[in-house]
Amino acid sequence: MDGEDQKFWGEVCQDLIEESQRAISPLIGSQKGGEIVKMGADGTPTTLIDLVAENKVLEVLEGVGRPLTLISEEIGEVNIGEGPPEAVLVLDPLDGTSNAVKNIPAYGISVAVAPIPPGHKGPLTIKDIQMGVVKNYATGDIYSAVRGKGAFNNGKSLKPSPKQDLSHISLGAYVYRMDMGKIEVLCKSVRRMRIMGAVAIEISYVADGTYDAFVDVRNNLRVVDVAAAKLILEESGGIVTDSDGKSLNGTLNVMEKTSLVATCNTVIHEEIMKILEGI
Amino acid sequence: MDGEDQKFWGEVCQDLIEESQRAISPLIGSQKGGEIVKMGADGTPTTLIDLVAENKVLEVLEGVGRPLTLISEEIGEVNIGEGPPEAVLVLDPLDGTSNAVKNIPAYGISVAVAPIPPGHKGPLTIKDIQMGVVKNYATGDIYSAVRGKGAFNNGKSLKPSPKQDLSHISLGAYVYRMDMGKIEVLCKSVRRMRIMGAVAIEISYVADGTYDAFVDVRNNLRVVDVAAAKLILEESGGIVTDSDGKSLNGTLNVMEKTSLVATCNTVIHEEIMKILEGI
Repeated sequence: MDGEDQKFWGEVCQDLIEESQRAISPLIGSQKGGEIVKMGADGTPTTLIDLVAENKVLEVLEGVGRPLTLISEEIGEVNIGEGPPEAVLVLDPLDGTSNAVKNIPAYGISVAVAPIPPGHKGPLTIKDIQMGVVKNYATGDIYSAVRGKGAFNNGKSLKPSPKQDLSHISLGAYVYRMDMGKIEVLCKSVRRMRIMGAVAIEISYVADGTYDAFVDVRNNLRVVDVAAAKLILEESGGIVTDSDGKSLNGTLNVMEKTSLVATCNTVIHEEIMKILEGI
Repeated sequence: MDGEDQKFWGEVCQDLIEESQRAISPLIGSQKGGEIVKMGADGTPTTLIDLVAENKVLEVLEGVGRPLTLISEEIGEVNIGEGPPEAVLVLDPLDGTSNAVKNIPAYGISVAVAPIPPGHKGPLTIKDIQMGVVKNYATGDIYSAVRGKGAFNNGKSLKPSPKQDLSHISLGAYVYRMDMGKIEVLCKSVRRMRIMGAVAIEISYVADGTYDAFVDVRNNLRVVDVAAAKLILEESGGIVTDSDGKSLNGTLNVMEKTSLVATCNTVIHEEIMKILEGI
């Protein structure tokens, strides 16, 4: 991503974040925000607060002045502006919806940008993401990365934990009515475990050493929800694969799912993979 | 607790909270705060931030002008002031130590007050607690209760969730290198699960409907760490028992342990007990 594109899309991300946060803030901690208003493009129910966040995203993107494709949980895929799109914007307008409704302080936005090379045909994949921004609205932390240029939180360079011993690590996990068999073995092998229910924020936690690793082994995680945080963690120096140890290459659409093993370094990644492979 | 005592100990709690928060704030999110500096009275390691919090608690209590007994994780039990103590103050000076060190926004203080009737002999139990205050420093939420007078967050009356269907609930749990067998069955039965790692705050989450239930089935939870939050939840109308469904009656000292099943109402409590009894 060249300097001019970086500046342009960086400002779009900033506008998206600020405008969305302002739009949803009256609904934080309110039961009304959690009411289901329709079904989303991904086949899951859409709450009022999700819809308010996505409508604001649409409004902002309609004003950016460059043609683009938006991929987002509730709306699916939509082209905005005239002419061939210059970029795909992959959004989770509200990461951690149920936390926002309950005022548990881990909810925010995830924005990823994949520029479309002129003349490019066919769908893009998560590997084409060049810019990622995740904000935890509750704390003000803004994690961001541009491919090849490192990862930052409010200007401070991010580095994952240097830990090498699995028994010393803090592990985040995403569980949702799942069989916890695999998680159980992992849980007994680590120092402590957290389930915060905000995937993009929790992957970003690995990038700055808050967590040492984060796993979701359900094969039910939307590629679009992790697109930004994956780049942030990789740019910080951390490792992201699926639960088979393969790099993520999912197509950018709301139906594509993946598993995830996100770690601070290769040593911890290998240790976790050994446990997952042994189950 | 009469009006004069309530006013006096309420102000002591407020001072403890404000002074402790000020003392630890430079160590929030710092690796230095997490360095182990000694072993605590309960046999677990004490970090620098724990010690700073407890030292401030001691300093504040030495200035209150009434004799009292302090029971706290690192120091154990200590009498402060001249003459027979008028109350036992049960403190967790820093609930969620590892969150504080990592800047995960769920850490704070727990203070419980048990007045000692004149002439009373023998140790007090958790049933003697008359006042409880829990603050999440990261969010500013202050949950408080006086026995018989309801529970509040910053002046707003607390009410637990009215949910009656286990499959719709949000369940918090505390796990620490545990066998997750029991948690696994519960996890599959509920709508969503959280592990935040801050027991007093998470029990208070049940009092205001953020969670619908919170369980710790390890039999390794310190009675003193739940003393304040138990009163807060009960005063809000929620239910607190051990994992056998019995009311808590642990003696107020740092070695006494318990299990915990804290729920929004009796229906959800019965559903959880059925699952725990069936395992």
